[in-house]
Amino acid sequence: MFVMPVIILLGVFSLIIAGLFAWSVLRRPATGGIAVQEQADRLVEISAAIAEGAMAFLMREYRTMGVFMAAFGLLVGFLVSWISALAFIAGAAISILAGFIGMRIATRGNVRTAAAAQRSVALAFRIAFDSGAVMGFGLVGLAVLGLALMYLLLNLLMPGASPVEVMEALAGFGLGGSSIALFARVGGGIYTKAADVGADLVGKVEENIPEDDPRNPAVIADNVGDNVGDIAGMGADLFGSVAESTCAALVIGAVAFAAEPGALLFPLLISAVGIPVALLATFFARTGSERGIEPALKRTLVVATLVMAVAMGFITLTLLPETFQLGGVDYTSRGVYYAFLSGLISGILIGMLTEYYTSNRYAPVREVARASETGPATNIIYGLSLGYKSTLFPVLFIAATVYIGYSFAGMYGIAIASLGMLGTIAATLTIDGFGPVADNAGGIAEMGGLGPAVRKRTDALDSAGNTTAAIGKGFAIGSAALTGLALFSAFLVASGIKSVDLLLPKVLAFLFVGALLPFLFTAMTMKSVGKAALDMIKEVRRQFATIPGLRETHLLTEQGFALLEKEAGLPKDRVSRLRPLVDKAFPTKEAVLKEMKAHIGTLRAMPADEALQKGIDLGFVAGRPDYRTCVDIATRASLREMILPGAQVILTPILVGYLFGVESLAGLLAGTFTAGVVLAISSANAGGGWDNAKKYIEAGNLGGKGSAVHKAAVVGDTVGDPFKDTSGPSLNILIKLQAIISLVFAPFFTHSLNLLG
Amino acid sequence: MFVMPVIILLGVFSLIIAGLFAWSVLRRPATGGIAVQEQADRLVEISAAIAEGAMAFLMREYRTMGVFMAAFGLLVGFLVSWISALAFIAGAAISILAGFIGMRIATRGNVRTAAAAQRSVALAFRIAFDSGAVMGFGLVGLAVLGLALMYLLLNLLMPGASPVEVMEALAGFGLGGSSIALFARVGGGIYTKAADVGADLVGKVEENIPEDDPRNPAVIADNVGDNVGDIAGMGADLFGSVAESTCAALVIGAVAFAAEPGALLFPLLISAVGIPVALLATFFARTGSERGIEPALKRTLVVATLVMAVAMGFITLTLLPETFQLGGVDYTSRGVYYAFLSGLISGILIGMLTEYYTSNRYAPVREVARASETGPATNIIYGLSLGYKSTLFPVLFIAATVYIGYSFAGMYGIAIASLGMLGTIAATLTIDGFGPVADNAGGIAEMGGLGPAVRKRTDALDSAGNTTAAIGKGFAIGSAALTGLALFSAFLVASGIKSVDLLLPKVLAFLFVGALLPFLFTAMTMKSVGKAALDMIKEVRRQFATIPGLRETHLLTEQGFALLEKEAGLPKDRVSRLRPLVDKAFPTKEAVLKEMKAHIGTLRAMPADEALQKGIDLGFVAGRPDYRTCVDIATRASLREMILPGAQVILTPILVGYLFGVESLAGLLAGTFTAGVVLAISSANAGGGWDNAKKYIEAGNLGGKGSAVHKAAVVGDTVGDPFKDTSGPSLNILIKLQAIISLVFAPFFTHSLNLLG
Repeated sequence: MFVMPVIILLGVFSLIIAGLFAWSVLRRPATGGIAVQEQADRLVEISAAIAEGAMAFLMREYRTMGVFMAAFGLLVGFLVSWISALAFIAGAAISILAGFIGMRIATRGNVRTAAAAQRSVALAFRIAFDSGAVMGFGLVGLAVLGLALMYLLLNLLMPGASPVEVMEALAGFGLGGSSIALFARVGGGIYTKAADVGADLVGKVEENIPEDDPRNPAVIADNVGDNVGDIAGMGADLFGSVAESTCAALVIGAVAFAAEPGALLFPLLISAVGIPVALLATFFARTGSERGIEPALKRTLVVATLVMAVAMGFITLTLLPETFQLGGVDYTSRGVYYAFLSGLISGILIGMLTEYYTSNRYAPVREVARASETGPATNIIYGLSLGYKSTLFPVLFIAATVYIGYSFAGMYGIAIASLGMLGTIAATLTIDGFGPVADNAGGIAEMGGLGPAVRKRTDALDSAGNTTAAIGKGFAIGSAALTGLALFSAFLVASGIKSVDLLLPKVLAFLFVGALLPFLFTAMTMKSVGKAALDMIKEVRRQFATIPGLRETHLLTEQGFALLEKEAGLPKDRVSRLRPLVDKAFPTKEAVLKEMKAHIGTLRAMPADEALQKGIDLGFVAGRPDYRTCVDIATRASLREMILPGAQVILTPILVGYLFGVESLAGLLAGTFTAGVVLAISSANAGGGWDNAKKYIEAGNLGGKGSAVHKAAVVGDTVGDPFKDTSGPSLNILIKLQAIISLVFAPFFTHSLNLLG
Repeated sequence: MFVMPVIILLGVFSLIIAGLFAWSVLRRPATGGIAVQEQADRLVEISAAIAEGAMAFLMREYRTMGVFMAAFGLLVGFLVSWISALAFIAGAAISILAGFIGMRIATRGNVRTAAAAQRSVALAFRIAFDSGAVMGFGLVGLAVLGLALMYLLLNLLMPGASPVEVMEALAGFGLGGSSIALFARVGGGIYTKAADVGADLVGKVEENIPEDDPRNPAVIADNVGDNVGDIAGMGADLFGSVAESTCAALVIGAVAFAAEPGALLFPLLISAVGIPVALLATFFARTGSERGIEPALKRTLVVATLVMAVAMGFITLTLLPETFQLGGVDYTSRGVYYAFLSGLISGILIGMLTEYYTSNRYAPVREVARASETGPATNIIYGLSLGYKSTLFPVLFIAATVYIGYSFAGMYGIAIASLGMLGTIAATLTIDGFGPVADNAGGIAEMGGLGPAVRKRTDALDSAGNTTAAIGKGFAIGSAALTGLALFSAFLVASGIKSVDLLLPKVLAFLFVGALLPFLFTAMTMKSVGKAALDMIKEVRRQFATIPGLRETHLLTEQGFALLEKEAGLPKDRVSRLRPLVDKAFPTKEAVLKEMKAHIGTLRAMPADEALQKGIDLGFVAGRPDYRTCVDIATRASLREMILPGAQVILTPILVGYLFGVESLAGLLAGTFTAGVVLAISSANAGGGWDNAKKYIEAGNLGGKGSAVHKAAVVGDTVGDPFKDTSGPSLNILIKLQAIISLVFAPFFTHSLNLLG
């Protein structure tokens, strides 16, 4: 009886914590610690451009999402029930809200982190960490609270319904969350890589200007992309996992615990308990040195895992009946705890393994780097091998978790194992949200010309962020696999299927069909990135070709300085004062003109037009790139390109279930999980491996930046980009969304045509 | 009663046909049609080097195989039965014999094809076709005869045994065939690509000499590799498929047809009937023009398919009882015929689809070619996408075949569908064996300096050979999938498993483990190629560095001619007579020296040593590359590098079956099939796509040979090499070998520890 109030209180508590973390970030002035006004203005300008771009993307995405939600909501309403449709809309809306909060704080935390890095690494770390925590606690709080309130509402709306019926309607909430994740992961994934590849291929390769150079018209879109992909994408993905796993566990548990409300709500309690545990863990995230950043982040996760293991031991054994029945088999509360533990432990192990395979501190990535010595082809071969090989242990862990969960607590055990892996989700998301904030801070520091000392600090933050991002990716894939299986189990329960026998012809046939879907989906998303990147490349090329002075500024700067000294007869120290304006930074034409006129006598006398031309000739003033068009192109291309893969994910289970029945659909889902999980892990790790092999070489190994070895490694990195940030993570959505659609549409499939008998 | 004699007669008939085709090839003189004696000598020399290299590889491989067969035979004997061990040895020995015959004729047909191309394209086509036919009819004849005689022998050795017991022992024959395929496909695949990559990376890239240049020390190993991979590898693979599918069908059918010997032997009859059908089809393979080559080859296959469909309709309905029982379900002979047809049809469809996705006449490959315009990274991304996307229809066809076979005739139907796909195997292997012979003929023509007109003809033959090779690859994968499933079904029958329920925890867990195995195996084989190629690269570099005059010959030739005219005062026409000796061809030092002395007065007076040095200085004489060491290195590296992947394939099913029981093993096999088939198709097609995208550009499109676009496409081609010729085809073996090991060791698994209960 007291369980629901506790859950709601913890949900509210989580939102308050998130609010406090947000306050701790926002109370600092955006450019605190920056003494030079020009630099401060510049920082504000850049971060505003990023925030504006991010919002522009979100707003356009929301419009598309709105149409989709209305259409799909009607479909759910007509084919399933209007109450499920309501839950669907609520789940989608709350997921959108969670993503919005994460994006808002990330695009404000980034500039503050960059500015704080001027002062101390400890402060910069704090701000980036707190920004991540807003995301972590906000998202989990919204998920827990949303699910709890929707459960109460459904009980009101469905008087006399059995707990199983209520829980099945509640699954619509999970479907809503997962549908948004489709947009965030697939659309967002296409966005981020189209911008990244477009920026790199024209900027770095054709124009030969450095990464994050403010003259590159796609640079803001690239930075927006980091937020879209790593904040909104990862957040929606894991929001979906939490909501779906909880729904799955609730559906399965409703059969066993119909009479015991405390035990019934146990799955919801797991995520709720994770909230204070994660808060406790955040106190261990302190560091004063660059070296201490990564250990501090990892410590947070380890502490959260240990405390969660102990806390859930007490709660499970207290709350659940000592023995219970499910599908005619007797299980114990102790067994449920083992299931929970297996998920919790395999989550952290998979995360660590992901780091091992993608960090350039270990052998696998270094091998890929060395393979670049014989050219891009061997770099690609070794990278793909790394990805394929890296699936061994993660998949074995997932298999072991499935086995343990299943044999100790039946299908309920799989769902609980999944929630176990997600038990530390608030902590995981916190350290995971840290990454893109730190990454963005580095970009802002670069564009704002904050100098090498600051850049070194943000690089240290960024590097630690890459590690936590790798761990987070491992978690996301692992939890997608378990969530998918949990939903699969719930779907079987909801459909009343008692066995999925591979000796049924249609099951075996659809196992094959299911296994090809991840490959087909990957082919589509990879090509989508290619097409969207092409749009971006054309636009960036167009801007470089048509905006006068855009390309030259930087190249002519030194020449300009020399001319100023000679032609204008300016003393050296006065010329030096101009440097911060032109070096790295990218001020407006007007600002430079004003400054130049203030400093240089000859220009002061000229009319504005003439002085401007002189400035361009001298290399000080350049046309301003049109960031907004690039952001817009990436936005439109990403939404256009996600239609086909999106349609595949949504239509396949509905059509197969309707045309060929639930057994065929079960075979399809099983095929998709198994092949999908392996392909997702290999895509993510191959991509990560290529990225870090390149970084290893850039750090001065094997010939360093600019060498032939580096060029070979850049090829792998470019191939790896869509692998690790689009196709790989999108497979999580494929796995989960197909399964939850099957679950939600289970009632509709009773009308199946069963074409295969 | 009359069925067995018919089978044996057809088997003998097939061997006689093979003998006649061999006679038709060998009765022609090796260099018939070559007027210039030097060229003829040169051709003989080159083809002898290839034949010698091929035999050297085979002999060393046989030694390793001998040790393996003895060890594995003992294992089978101890753990299963000595009769199974006997069948295993017989199957292995006959597969070896089939491969040996194929290699012998291919390495003699190649030079005759090259020489005949001097005369007419029709004659060259005939010789290459007949060489392929020796392989096709020889292999099928040996398979049919071997199985039939082994069946009779086992009946003698096992008096009183039930048909099921006899058939289970016979499965050892299939295991033998498949084990040899492991060596031929994995070892051979590593060999061929190590030689190819090694030859290309040093020759084409570092030394800047053309493909098939006789100065390249790895060039003979490369040509040997074509035979090893495409003749011995493909042959052993399909020999394994025939033997295994037949064994699987016999095991399953033995339950239903124990009392009807005619029906019992029906599976064996299918391959036997394919023999006269294929012979009939060969009469349609005639062409007098270059354009007609490909249609002629395809016509052969289409005719064989049509006749087979009609013939088997009569035989099935006549031989099998109108209705029969299997696993308590009633089936009809008509149903068995439908199963056969579905396999037959999907085989040819999958073959055609493979061609569509890998030929540069169609959109997919051209898209990859165009993607090379933006560099190697986009070439790789689009190539991988092509591979992933190309799995859609083949897998749907396989799924449909499985469904049709299964629902019309139960597990027996799957095995019959598999034999249906292999029904045209004699014809398929004939047109498939044509490819490497034509390819080698092109290489020999190039090395022998036969001139552009001849090369154009061999190129046309080679191009058609690529098409049939693509079709053959599709067949091989499709039949591997169905053979694997047939063996899986037989394994279930042999183990008495009545259902493979994914709702058993261990089945579900091992489905995941099974799905990761193809990825792990691919990672291993790809890296094996990398390592073996590195050995080769080192040796080729060493030879270029240490053998005097090796590199220079060609480069200095023109200079040498000029010097001769000036210094030796030789008239222009006398110098021209020397050209055939040095241009393209690579004669012995002694031969050149003799010729030069005969022609040039100044040299005649010199002692041999001094004249030789003069010759080297003039660029006529060069150090001879040490082909044999390169062949030896590829041989040793390939056998060394196949140990790890080989151990994975063999040990996994035995260990899983023994430790975790047959249900776990069933889950593992199902996971491996589904993920394996999809990965195999995508690997083969991506590799083929990259290869032909490069060739499309080399044909003068998008900038042509030497352009930046071409360089980008070469990267994809190099990545694709191990994909299409090592990892992809090796997956066929993984799929089948794991399954037949499970079947053969089924009796041993009754002692399973069943650790997971």
